[in-house]
Amino acid sequence: MINFQTSPDQYKHWELSFDGAVARLAMDVQEDETLADGYKLKLNSYDLGVDIELADAIQRIRFEHPEVRAVVITSLKPRIFCAGANIYMLGTSSHAFKVNFCKFTNETRCGIEDDSRASGRRYIAALNGTASGGGYELAIACDEIYLVDDGNSAVSLPEVPLLGVLPGTGGLTRLVDKRKVRRDRADVFSTLAEGLKGKRAKEWGLIDDTFPTSKFQEAMDERLAQIGNVRSDNGTQDNILRNNGGIQLNPLKIESSEDTRNSKYVSLKFHRDKRYVDLSVRGPESDLSISADEIQKLGDDYWPLRAYRELDDALLYLRVNEPEIGLVCIRTEGSIENVLSVDKTLAANRDHWLVREIVLHMARVLRRLDLTAKSFFSIIEPGSCFAGNLFELVLASDRSYMLNNPDETVEIALSDLNTGAFPMSNGLTRLQSRFLAEPKKAYEAFARERPFNAEEAEAAGLVTFAPDDLDWDDEIRLAIEERTSLSPDALTGMEASLRFAGPETMDTKIYGRLTAWQNWIFQRPNAVGEHGALTNYGKPTQARFDYKRT
Amino acid sequence: MINFQTSPDQYKHWELSFDGAVARLAMDVQEDETLADGYKLKLNSYDLGVDIELADAIQRIRFEHPEVRAVVITSLKPRIFCAGANIYMLGTSSHAFKVNFCKFTNETRCGIEDDSRASGRRYIAALNGTASGGGYELAIACDEIYLVDDGNSAVSLPEVPLLGVLPGTGGLTRLVDKRKVRRDRADVFSTLAEGLKGKRAKEWGLIDDTFPTSKFQEAMDERLAQIGNVRSDNGTQDNILRNNGGIQLNPLKIESSEDTRNSKYVSLKFHRDKRYVDLSVRGPESDLSISADEIQKLGDDYWPLRAYRELDDALLYLRVNEPEIGLVCIRTEGSIENVLSVDKTLAANRDHWLVREIVLHMARVLRRLDLTAKSFFSIIEPGSCFAGNLFELVLASDRSYMLNNPDETVEIALSDLNTGAFPMSNGLTRLQSRFLAEPKKAYEAFARERPFNAEEAEAAGLVTFAPDDLDWDDEIRLAIEERTSLSPDALTGMEASLRFAGPETMDTKIYGRLTAWQNWIFQRPNAVGEHGALTNYGKPTQARFDYKRT
Repeated sequence: MINFQTSPDQYKHWELSFDGAVARLAMDVQEDETLADGYKLKLNSYDLGVDIELADAIQRIRFEHPEVRAVVITSLKPRIFCAGANIYMLGTSSHAFKVNFCKFTNETRCGIEDDSRASGRRYIAALNGTASGGGYELAIACDEIYLVDDGNSAVSLPEVPLLGVLPGTGGLTRLVDKRKVRRDRADVFSTLAEGLKGKRAKEWGLIDDTFPTSKFQEAMDERLAQIGNVRSDNGTQDNILRNNGGIQLNPLKIESSEDTRNSKYVSLKFHRDKRYVDLSVRGPESDLSISADEIQKLGDDYWPLRAYRELDDALLYLRVNEPEIGLVCIRTEGSIENVLSVDKTLAANRDHWLVREIVLHMARVLRRLDLTAKSFFSIIEPGSCFAGNLFELVLASDRSYMLNNPDETVEIALSDLNTGAFPMSNGLTRLQSRFLAEPKKAYEAFARERPFNAEEAEAAGLVTFAPDDLDWDDEIRLAIEERTSLSPDALTGMEASLRFAGPETMDTKIYGRLTAWQNWIFQRPNAVGEHGALTNYGKPTQARFDYKRT
Repeated sequence: MINFQTSPDQYKHWELSFDGAVARLAMDVQEDETLADGYKLKLNSYDLGVDIELADAIQRIRFEHPEVRAVVITSLKPRIFCAGANIYMLGTSSHAFKVNFCKFTNETRCGIEDDSRASGRRYIAALNGTASGGGYELAIACDEIYLVDDGNSAVSLPEVPLLGVLPGTGGLTRLVDKRKVRRDRADVFSTLAEGLKGKRAKEWGLIDDTFPTSKFQEAMDERLAQIGNVRSDNGTQDNILRNNGGIQLNPLKIESSEDTRNSKYVSLKFHRDKRYVDLSVRGPESDLSISADEIQKLGDDYWPLRAYRELDDALLYLRVNEPEIGLVCIRTEGSIENVLSVDKTLAANRDHWLVREIVLHMARVLRRLDLTAKSFFSIIEPGSCFAGNLFELVLASDRSYMLNNPDETVEIALSDLNTGAFPMSNGLTRLQSRFLAEPKKAYEAFARERPFNAEEAEAAGLVTFAPDDLDWDDEIRLAIEERTSLSPDALTGMEASLRFAGPETMDTKIYGRLTAWQNWIFQRPNAVGEHGALTNYGKPTQARFDYKRT
């Protein structure tokens, strides 16, 4: 079982340190501390375990160290920044694991960009040595890239020439879409195993600057000081609050049995013989109309932070540890009013650093759900609390079923947060995405300021089906049976197409176009067959290709 | 060898007829007239041969019948419009063929939308019977969809539930992006093998209207009369010219030997042992500063129409008949001035119907090149004429090499047509796409009104490399050797990512996201393995899935 929880005192591969407004994340991968057997993490290459620590570190910087204005990512190994994803790990992993591994590392890198864009922290890649493959892909997720000029160090994307696969952790997309490298130069760079050194790399826009070894540290310090000074001395309310210190992210408490996995607000109940799981989210226990100061005091006990951290962990757990589960039935329990009291508080305090981080975190967890290769059905029954932020779960689901029983209260409700707090990867809200054909309907639904019962919800287009009491059990049972009988691969491709209507962004290009191509290549004999390049890397044998172009 | 040339007198599967401003394309697939052995084209199902005729028919409507304002696509078979791509054909085809088949059928459907958008012809799908799978995907490429209400006929996308693959000919994308069907309804519809009939289909936005059998023909006639009347009676110059009649598209004359394939302006020279081909385009023989009337008189002999029809045929030939050729070296021969005289004429007469169709055709051929899964290098040498429209070949190439020899004239040039006449699938010009980082450079390059020599071209960012005479032969030879040694699959994924920087459109979503997922699924054991759904369709055996979600 792969565990996604960690904390700095448990890190094996990263050193996280703080100096005023600057955080330093230094990579020092321990080659024997691998997540699985059969490979060594040489030259700061990484496996999922290394990336789980990186994701944790970035999360902690955001919540525990809001005073940080610049994050420098560098390496403690001489002459090497990072050699990318470990090739032997990839070569020995199942197709499904490779796909999940790449998805998580992509989300970590998009998380860096989310922090930069939404919270204004500046990420600096200080490449004190060669950054190849995933190493350069990590750098290119940062705002600025500086490479030491030591006559040897280079940036490179050697996947195509050496491994017969893609730089699929956003590399190709960010090359032309983020750094806007000319496409013919991107073509040359992406087929050049040895990559490019300082001067040429700068000329082609692959890095921002290069400095000789003797001046590299000084140049980095100068740049970091600039950022720290500019941002933290302007004395705004936000800065004062940020500098009062962050909150602690404590370990989640999770209890598991054979068929359940429970934390405080999120529980999983497995029906493994039927290949589905019930995922239940409990709403807040009471009205949470509180002040920002009280939120800060509650810290990670505050419902929206705790519940969404637990939801995030449950999604990751399901992805990598429960591959045979094809369908997640989302349920909620609690009071709609209590959920709405949270949303009201979050909306009223959205300029407070902690509230902003909490809302951004909720948004990232919801995007993680959008990108999870399992079907999601929302089941709306008496006692549920699909309101405001939790109604996003309905909007994120592939379908929703709401019980229509006049004898019981079954309701859903919207809040201010449904109108922009939780953008999808494509930049739209889930309401916008739902009502692409009739944008007016999104406004109408929002304008109504009280809950919807089943018939109203169906008429407003907010749920898929509203069966009555007599049909309910059969309809849900049949829907589950039918869904879990379909080809899991066809469903993955179908959902990836239907969930992201409308515009595309760099993020959706990475998860849609680039990832889909990489997944295709990850199955091809030319990569993973007996004579494939990935299989034969580092062996005395050579790759042999079937040269038919497809 | 698959031949992409045909004409109405050779059609086996379609009946094309004209009545004033209305063209009627009626599908009547002959089940034994297949392109390969091993399957029968029952129930108006199609193989590549059926789609080659459809593509030809649409091309002929545009050039030979400019008076047409509405195209109705219907079927001559009772109770069935079209059952989609033939499943036994898919089941017995190689992966590479399936991919190429889907790409061509996608291009045909995007071609329908191009005609609608750019030339204002209205496409009406008159579904006189069930449209399933690719049948509904053909309908959804039309502007309007009408379904007979006979108690039986339905629209459906049964690929996921019945075959374990995607409706990958644009179906899923057009469902949510073109018709903007709500995503949960799209999810239900795409997993419902039997589809939806008239009333529900209309309510969900899958069709525009439904009529009982007895009134269907009348309703279609009425709608077609409306379109014909509105558009053709307004007496504009364009309409008068259009109504003077079209031009004839005569068969291309192609001569082949073992290592060559030559037509008047385009020739292929194969280096099969080295897995590349030289593709040469010859420019016009003389200055072609002529009037629109003279263009109409020249008809399909006019250089830009003839040369680009030949180029289109060469690209299609290479795709399906030469899978082992991984690299196309594009060369040109002729006078830059003669090419520029053509561009000037086209730009000056762009409102003339024939000129507009010629330019739109050139744009489609260039997009076909962008979407071809082979590497393209442009080789710019003395005697070449990469100017204006032919310079798009350089911009469309993955790389370009321009000889830098002061003793010889080696030049490239831009024209008005490079600034908007040939949009890529993503809506950008190739100059915009090239200079995403520095849009100013596109303007600068265009503002210079004379040709560029190699050094100037390199400085302006218009070519990748400009080696001198001493290095030239070695550099080209090495570049070709290196390119053709790489994994063909990794190159396909890499090029599909690097060629389409910037915005995404419905077209690029179809060729990028949807197609990449479909190609992935087309390799999965759950579809094409011994127990896969595609393999077992129609057999007494049942599909058995590995239910791991990826």
